[in-house]
Amino acid sequence: MSTPRGPIVLATDFGDSPYVGQIKGVIASIAPDAHVIDLTHQVAPQDIVEGLWHLKGALAYFPRGTIFVAVVDPGVGTARRALCVDAGDFLAVGPDNGILSFIAPEKRRAVHLIEAEEYTLRKKSAVFHGRDIFAPAAAHLANGLDPAKLGPAGEGVIELPWIVPRATKDGLEGAVLVVDRFGNLLTNIEGHRAAADATVTIEKTPIGSLRTTYSDAEVGRPLALIGSSGFIEIAIRNGSAAKGLGLGKGARVSVKGAR
Amino acid sequence: MSTPRGPIVLATDFGDSPYVGQIKGVIASIAPDAHVIDLTHQVAPQDIVEGLWHLKGALAYFPRGTIFVAVVDPGVGTARRALCVDAGDFLAVGPDNGILSFIAPEKRRAVHLIEAEEYTLRKKSAVFHGRDIFAPAAAHLANGLDPAKLGPAGEGVIELPWIVPRATKDGLEGAVLVVDRFGNLLTNIEGHRAAADATVTIEKTPIGSLRTTYSDAEVGRPLALIGSSGFIEIAIRNGSAAKGLGLGKGARVSVKGAR
Amino acid sequence: MSTPRGPIVLATDFGDSPYVGQIKGVIASIAPDAHVIDLTHQVAPQDIVEGLWHLKGALAYFPRGTIFVAVVDPGVGTARRALCVDAGDFLAVGPDNGILSFIAPEKRRAVHLIEAEEYTLRKKSAVFHGRDIFAPAAAHLANGLDPAKLGPAGEGVIELPWIVPRATKDGLEGAVLVVDRFGNLLTNIEGHRAAADATVTIEKTPIGSLRTTYSDAEVGRPLALIGSSGFIEIAIRNGSAAKGLGLGKGARVSVKGAR
Repeated sequence: MSTPRGPIVLATDFGDSPYVGQIKGVIASIAPDAHVIDLTHQVAPQDIVEGLWHLKGALAYFPRGTIFVAVVDPGVGTARRALCVDAGDFLAVGPDNGILSFIAPEKRRAVHLIEAEEYTLRKKSAVFHGRDIFAPAAAHLANGLDPAKLGPAGEGVIELPWIVPRATKDGLEGAVLVVDRFGNLLTNIEGHRAAADATVTIEKTPIGSLRTTYSDAEVGRPLALIGSSGFIEIAIRNGSAAKGLGLGKGARVSVKGAR
Repeated sequence: MSTPRGPIVLATDFGDSPYVGQIKGVIASIAPDAHVIDLTHQVAPQDIVEGLWHLKGALAYFPRGTIFVAVVDPGVGTARRALCVDAGDFLAVGPDNGILSFIAPEKRRAVHLIEAEEYTLRKKSAVFHGRDIFAPAAAHLANGLDPAKLGPAGEGVIELPWIVPRATKDGLEGAVLVVDRFGNLLTNIEGHRAAADATVTIEKTPIGSLRTTYSDAEVGRPLALIGSSGFIEIAIRNGSAAKGLGLGKGARVSVKGAR
Repeated sequence: MSTPRGPIVLATDFGDSPYVGQIKGVIASIAPDAHVIDLTHQVAPQDIVEGLWHLKGALAYFPRGTIFVAVVDPGVGTARRALCVDAGDFLAVGPDNGILSFIAPEKRRAVHLIEAEEYTLRKKSAVFHGRDIFAPAAAHLANGLDPAKLGPAGEGVIELPWIVPRATKDGLEGAVLVVDRFGNLLTNIEGHRAAADATVTIEKTPIGSLRTTYSDAEVGRPLALIGSSGFIEIAIRNGSAAKGLGLGKGARVSVKGAR
């Protein structure tokens, strides 16, 4: 029997630690039939933007009713707020540090503070709200809890506006947000915004027009393509673009012929 | 409630990337009650043979109705075919690049191309058929779909005949297919084919007769035994056979007294 | 439909190997609806104490009926016993090498040898009892099997008494049992045993009183706090205490004002 809502999808920077297992134990204690999916636990420690990027790219692939648990939480134990964002088709819980802005503002129907003692663990560690606050809240939501029961309505959500590409006179300018394990440089520019004849430049290096697959370039030569999460990326066939171009997170990328 | 078939078992070279989570999202969207098991995502990138070896060794441990999703897919986006192999007791989906030959030819009842638009994602990335073609096909199969609905019957399956050991005048000759994280050299020779007094040689180094466990040799000395997946392996107690012998994938192994 | 007992929680030193997937295949074959949770597979190879520490710290977060499968098993294939410990609220299976002493002696209601052929795999590898003995036993327990059916009552369980902190004239003396991936030094001294004004010393370095979160110290300075599993740990804010202090497993920790 599935729970009324779900699955619960986890995105954290906990790596291979046993903390993920503890989170699942808390969920199983409250919602034994909830289906839990690991999106990723390999976000670089405390890298809110990388967590956000992965959530944004994955959003389209999860069913209605999904509850995202986003725990990249460098401010754990400080005054930062714990939030639940109700996006209608799905819910998300996490710290209010920018990571929840993976949900576009127009999709946010309501925001609630997570404060109700009865929906979090009684005993809270100062350093692990993923297990003690966000996991139990998500489990109760999976059981069908009205998000408004978690706490009073919260004002807004911290935005990370700089991660949205800005319009230039002939296209868009964005940045590399993530370097994946192959050395591909993943940007914040969605592929569908580029025209068929769009051309890509990273810092001062022209990369050319968008290709379809990695094999559309000579070995060792950089190419731009629309990656599997829908964002433009710069890659080197059978190599590392990060190493080959000497670039990484924050490198500026411009796409002429995009809007 | 379980699905009519299942579990769905994933074997890929995606490592710790969030792509595995996206695959699970697609499956949960189509078959919310399907049980998904990660066999491994740590196949060396694009190493079809390693993927095949792991699938072959694991086959006996999964229940009737299992759907294997085998995605080591260096040719993604090219003309290589997407297939579903019906082996009666279980099904497998994956690219036609040799990896599906983990199913012995005599077990293959039917082979179908995966082409039906209604059982794959409408929007397909050129670089991620694991998520866009194989995951949805597997999820529909878990829901009970007749494999013949996926597409027309396909001719054969690409074989990797060289990974089958060949008979010699006094035994079998095979090769090292996988080096595990302990440096053990895992071969393609099934242990049950060796007689009680069989002796093993790797390249020109005699290893001696088959032992029962790692502790049956002196520390630092190589030994041969039947590994946990049923294949003969060469190990060094408390050490790395790969380093100690200076050998790796492709090293020739002969077993005198096997057939 | 959930199984009568569960979830089944796995703690092993198998790392990213496909062996974990085989274990899950065996469980799915016997108990298709069992819910399996990975606590950790990243225990350092053969480090019984690290496995025990993780199990002990996680225990409180799992529901009644949980079946722990503890497989750190350097003696696999030797005469060491295979046991099931019945702790009333939960069960645990694993080798009798000390790892099962994560269950406090007063919680152990009964101990059974795992010997019944019908509840283990017929064909047993000498090197992989996790799959061939402990996984099937756990799956049958999840299906509701009476633990006494697994085999005759077993005498005791191997203890690791040295991992319990000892009382000194003004507090407790314990040791570092685990170094986590951030270089934090995790001890065996439970935080609730320390008074509000307790002070911590590691080897001969005074660390001061217990802080609440990592940010309660200057960057680069060591601090002691109660970690998320409830044990006292020594950390360096934004750094590695293991490197900074030049200490690791076995380092002696004394807490003045604890009992």
